[in-house]
Amino acid sequence: MRYELYYWPEIQGRGEFVRLALEEAGADYIDVARRKGGTEKMLRLMDSPRVKEPSFAPPFLKAGKLFIGQTPNILLFLGPRHGLAPKSEQGRLWTHQLQLTLGDFLVEVHDTHHPIGVGLYYEDQKDEAKRRVSEFLKERAPKFFGYFEKVLTRNKTGWLVGRSLTYADLSLFQVIAGLRYAFPTSMQKLARKHPRVIELHDRVAKRPRIDAYLASDRRIPFNEYGIFRNYPELDA
Amino acid sequence: MRYELYYWPEIQGRGEFVRLALEEAGADYIDVARRKGGTEKMLRLMDSPRVKEPSFAPPFLKAGKLFIGQTPNILLFLGPRHGLAPKSEQGRLWTHQLQLTLGDFLVEVHDTHHPIGVGLYYEDQKDEAKRRVSEFLKERAPKFFGYFEKVLTRNKTGWLVGRSLTYADLSLFQVIAGLRYAFPTSMQKLARKHPRVIELHDRVAKRPRIDAYLASDRRIPFNEYGIFRNYPELDA
Repeated sequence: MRYELYYWPEIQGRGEFVRLALEEAGADYIDVARRKGGTEKMLRLMDSPRVKEPSFAPPFLKAGKLFIGQTPNILLFLGPRHGLAPKSEQGRLWTHQLQLTLGDFLVEVHDTHHPIGVGLYYEDQKDEAKRRVSEFLKERAPKFFGYFEKVLTRNKTGWLVGRSLTYADLSLFQVIAGLRYAFPTSMQKLARKHPRVIELHDRVAKRPRIDAYLASDRRIPFNEYGIFRNYPELDA
Repeated sequence: MRYELYYWPEIQGRGEFVRLALEEAGADYIDVARRKGGTEKMLRLMDSPRVKEPSFAPPFLKAGKLFIGQTPNILLFLGPRHGLAPKSEQGRLWTHQLQLTLGDFLVEVHDTHHPIGVGLYYEDQKDEAKRRVSEFLKERAPKFFGYFEKVLTRNKTGWLVGRSLTYADLSLFQVIAGLRYAFPTSMQKLARKHPRVIELHDRVAKRPRIDAYLASDRRIPFNEYGIFRNYPELDA
């Protein structure tokens, strides 16, 4: 079955967590909105009354007749089908729990440059962003890093769950890559204090399919439209 | 099996979505931290190296030997066990997708009074909160309301999913109840424009077990420590 991924074509954003899972799985998929006329098709689908289970926002995945929205939900679906989550219920719930926690982290990363509203430009909330990012780098990012370092310390295998890679590892890789792009200076200190998290990032980057994906033009470069933005004035 | 729910005892917060599901299910559970010494027990468990799958934050649920964290994940677990989610994979994914979208909404509600950081007092971010809430009430809340109204319009049964109540309905009920507490004036206009959402709220409130729960002292009143806070200066 060929999956159809629907997501904004200019950014990694939330869609990137799905792209990474599909790439690592070697799955057959189309990144619909990156093709000619694809964004229009996505917007039409979002408005279409024929879709009984509409998504609030991209990304969503078409898998046969199913439309699945919400990034963690898409990964919950893909995980057991492609060996990216354990088979047991306990393992699947735990993997999902980690993904949801990464999702919480991601919202806080996004809000460093958009503390007042997603509908406003960064330039219109720059002062508030400076306050928010200082709290984020001082309190929140270390708390999340410490949590994932603890999980890796307890599991002892180098992966977050069990003995092999899951979609939660791919997602943690993406968050670390993004934070390095956004906050290169602040990340040096965080990296030193959380070696297991960084080792996991490096190990994921070397997976043959991920390595090939990152070097391909399917990987959209980080930029200042996505979740992870490099605004030097925010990197303390 | 008697469930153990671990959550802050002073607030409804995220734990309330789990409480509502357990109450509607008539499940046997203990709200651990509301008992003597319970908060200390919760904090000890969060720090204990014996817990191999630690939660980043409450709520978490102990079910037999399982520890399950993250509100939507707990509901994903409870749903099929207590008739609060469809049996089919498609139905379970769709219910979960709605729950995750309500979770996104909830973060935005919380950030109306905490746009700069969770670690700071509201009083230290009042000016930013006024800007954020104006964007929230003008753009974001109507967008989320419109989405759930659309889902109810397409499903035609009065429930979000299929022909009977799911945990997503309980959660939408809670969000509406909270918004009415936090923004009584602004909610009047939103309610007029989204009658199906309000009807769902009222229908859930009349369920015998929910009705009994809301009248009991197990229901913690809304207050200014939780997600939904009544600050009259924020209610435009």
